[in-house]
Amino acid sequence: MPEEVLSQAAAEMLDWHGSGMSVMEMSHRGKEFISIYEQAQVDLRELLAVPDNFEILFMQGGGLAENAIVPLNISRGGVADFIVSGSWSQKSQQEARKYCAVNIAASSEADGHTTLPDPATWQLSPGASYVHVCSNETIHGVEFHELPDLKALGHDAPLVIDFSSHVASRPVDWSRVGLAFGGAQKNLGPAGLTLVIVREDLLGHALPACPSAFDYKLLAANQSMYNTPPTYAIYVAGLVFQWLKRQGGVAAMEARNQAKAALLYDTIDCSQLYQNKVAPNCRSRMNVPFFLRDERLNESFLTGARARGLLQLKGHKSVGGMRASLYNAMPLAGVQALVDYLREFENTRG
Amino acid sequence: MPEEVLSQAAAEMLDWHGSGMSVMEMSHRGKEFISIYEQAQVDLRELLAVPDNFEILFMQGGGLAENAIVPLNISRGGVADFIVSGSWSQKSQQEARKYCAVNIAASSEADGHTTLPDPATWQLSPGASYVHVCSNETIHGVEFHELPDLKALGHDAPLVIDFSSHVASRPVDWSRVGLAFGGAQKNLGPAGLTLVIVREDLLGHALPACPSAFDYKLLAANQSMYNTPPTYAIYVAGLVFQWLKRQGGVAAMEARNQAKAALLYDTIDCSQLYQNKVAPNCRSRMNVPFFLRDERLNESFLTGARARGLLQLKGHKSVGGMRASLYNAMPLAGVQALVDYLREFENTRG
Repeated sequence: MPEEVLSQAAAEMLDWHGSGMSVMEMSHRGKEFISIYEQAQVDLRELLAVPDNFEILFMQGGGLAENAIVPLNISRGGVADFIVSGSWSQKSQQEARKYCAVNIAASSEADGHTTLPDPATWQLSPGASYVHVCSNETIHGVEFHELPDLKALGHDAPLVIDFSSHVASRPVDWSRVGLAFGGAQKNLGPAGLTLVIVREDLLGHALPACPSAFDYKLLAANQSMYNTPPTYAIYVAGLVFQWLKRQGGVAAMEARNQAKAALLYDTIDCSQLYQNKVAPNCRSRMNVPFFLRDERLNESFLTGARARGLLQLKGHKSVGGMRASLYNAMPLAGVQALVDYLREFENTRG
Repeated sequence: MPEEVLSQAAAEMLDWHGSGMSVMEMSHRGKEFISIYEQAQVDLRELLAVPDNFEILFMQGGGLAENAIVPLNISRGGVADFIVSGSWSQKSQQEARKYCAVNIAASSEADGHTTLPDPATWQLSPGASYVHVCSNETIHGVEFHELPDLKALGHDAPLVIDFSSHVASRPVDWSRVGLAFGGAQKNLGPAGLTLVIVREDLLGHALPACPSAFDYKLLAANQSMYNTPPTYAIYVAGLVFQWLKRQGGVAAMEARNQAKAALLYDTIDCSQLYQNKVAPNCRSRMNVPFFLRDERLNESFLTGARARGLLQLKGHKSVGGMRASLYNAMPLAGVQALVDYLREFENTRG
């Protein structure tokens, strides 16, 4: 989280803009919170360049809940195509089987999710309700640098993207997207807020089993206040949106993120000790998994990193090794410090 | 929200306990957040005297989402009995019909929800999966001062209570309860956190349509971290739990709440202008709806109240009139100020 945002939240904690109330004490239907909510909507729509025919919903439950909520809302009980490119899309397709037929149109499981299957090779289903991709796989470090153009492939199903872990790190080509969802906790704010951006024509087709509180159409019709929304999380996310605008918006973030990722990948690629196994055309700018070729050095690597304040470098337990996350709030100087440590460790211990 | 809690949250915003991190920046699997989570669990279990054979789950979606999540988890697709005592239980039974058969075992709709049907008259279903009551109806101001003893009525179905709007305002007789749920935003903390306290034998019976992120058994097995939990909301709720303990716990809160409610109801009952229509044996200590016998005075009443800093007194649009909410954080002095205004307004304008 940007320090500016945290400082502002602390300063406003007991009295928001002279209202005499904390944001935590506001009724979600009062004029104070409505103004916070509306500003957050406007700012996010501007930041992500969301077209007018898309609704922005502020929900709860995280990306994991959306794995069920998406098919409950838009599968119509038909068939949905999934591209399995790592752990998250794998979880998504498993959960969707509760609500619709699932076709694995492509998978990179055979190569350990180190490549992205070429869209021209995807075995898409005629008449599918939607096509699901995880546009950035947090654990495997695989990112779509271009979203697939389903229309060009001769398919008119809406594309669903799980953009939890790279939202607001790069622009989204909405002409190729029907629905985007993500937890806010990586780039947009605190945990407990889920973002769903959905094209209007996809509203109103929920299955009978869809809980009302997660029915996109009901939420859209009630400005995300069909149930009590996570008011404080929306407020903090709104502060992050304003911070992002002050930084120059998503285009400026993308340039920073490209520079950060290039610095780290170049260092890894030039090293004899470290290795990133993902194909260069789909390496994630947000999450960089890497391995020490001599795994016996893992513990001393992590110990030295901690001593330098370089935290949370241990890889996810399902893949092992190391992982560096370069979310928006991470400055270039933070990546430089990591790169300096990588070189120093290799020179002295590798 | 207690001011002490807000002040502490503000002071710890940029650096929690010397960790160098805001709680908003913590990984939910890191040792810092785990310690916050575990302390909140321990404190809440102590405050509410939750027996060991109940799980405490921190969830998302609010009471409204639980209207679906409860039958998805424990109805087993059978029949559930509902006592309709106001707006919230009415909503609950409507939503449950998506997942199971619903029997309205009793309703106070005919008298405008101003009484509570005597449990001895309830038409309970043999073999019901559960019996649902809203133990405090926020809008109609009706509260169960004693939970029904289903066993004594010859029924062994678990009792489900929606205690959203009076949790921690009085003790709960867990010997009569199978499951309690509620949004945290009335008495326990910020919006975006939902509390579910469920007896262990009710876990593991979710319907196939239940989203994994809302499957009580999966949540219990993963310490409410099957999906990313609303970390900051849990932290603030934990601060409220500690504030409640410093106040003397739920028993002390109950005594305060009794005194606050008695002061307000006595003033209304002794007045010629104001009226509360709920039967005395089921009047809510938390939410006191009242009416001016001359409704043409409503606007000048509200204007005068606002001028004295007495806010949010307008009744819910579905019932009209006025409503005072006396949640835990409202001091007796606040109720005294309201009572003083009620008398003054009656004397000068009534």
